Amino acid sequence: MLRIIGIDPGSRFTGVGIIDTQQQQVQYVHHETIKCGDGDFPVRLKTIFESVNELIKQYQPHEMAIENVFMAKNPNAALKLGQARGAAICATVVHDIQVHEYAPKAIKQAVVGKGGADKTQVQYMVQLLLNLNIKVQNDAADGLAVAICHANNRWAQQRLVANNTSNWRKF
Amino acid sequence: MLRIIGIDPGSRFTGVGIIDTQQQQVQYVHHETIKCGDGDFPVRLKTIFESVNELIKQYQPHEMAIENVFMAKNPNAALKLGQARGAAICATVVHDIQVHEYAPKAIKQAVVGKGGADKTQVQYMVQLLLNLNIKVQNDAADGLAVAICHANNRWAQQRLVANNTSNWRKF
Repeated sequence: MLRIIGIDPGSRFTGVGIIDTQQQQVQYVHHETIKCGDGDFPVRLKTIFESVNELIKQYQPHEMAIENVFMAKNPNAALKLGQARGAAICATVVHDIQVHEYAPKAIKQAVVGKGGADKTQVQYMVQLLLNLNIKVQNDAADGLAVAICHANNRWAQQRLVANNTSNWRKF
Repeated sequence: MLRIIGIDPGSRFTGVGIIDTQQQQVQYVHHETIKCGDGDFPVRLKTIFESVNELIKQYQPHEMAIENVFMAKNPNAALKLGQARGAAICATVVHDIQVHEYAPKAIKQAVVGKGGADKTQVQYMVQLLLNLNIKVQNDAADGLAVAICHANNRWAQQRLVANNTSNWRKF
């Protein structure tokens, strides 16, 4: 069994989703939206760092997954997002947990089946895949989505390794 | 006596300068360039976080000063810088140390006397102001520069408060 924490960082709201995965199946563990407020920026970063740190201590995930952002429009927004992302990553790496990054398209592809899916489709599919009867807030749904993407990728890699191993045996 | 840690964050090199200030004077304590390497980004952020954390434990500064960046050109560079900045700020705020941000122009004005000064002039004036016989590397000089800027601002504020207080007494 592998426990994954998925994080969707933001300087106002940071979404977190935690799932377990075993034999190509996923199971819901926890989700949460960290509210960073609209106060001083260093205080918001502290909130992200300490909240993620607490969640890691409480749920003890084995690996972390996060969206790999490429923004080409607004440098100031990128700077803010970068700092929030830095805070979330720091809270993870201090526990020696590996960080895995995924492009937004790969996450949508893994969850909805198409890279161009919108936020509502991601939210809906996350709830469906994890068999949730509650409505998950957008940012937390994105956290769960990147965790599901990493779980898929994990099993895909494992199948690849298994196939390669059996090929070698043929010779 | 107030001890200030000044940080110039970067995803490859993060400059750190520590000074003491007392009665409008500054004294050199330490400077260091954290080499983040060119490996995985989360590992670089871990290096920044842990190095700043160690320096804070060792030198116990009272306040932190950092450049307030406004970049209008490259969003990807802003995202990288933001993450490095987030790591440095997190390492500080977890110790409940207040973070003070200064615009690049204000830092150059405080150290060189003109907002449009270049890196070499900042480096030269930092060495002169702190009475250093060694050549300080650029990033570390920027760390010391923002610390000096904060020290100046601190005393300016105190004078303002003192003047206001004496004005009140006149009535």
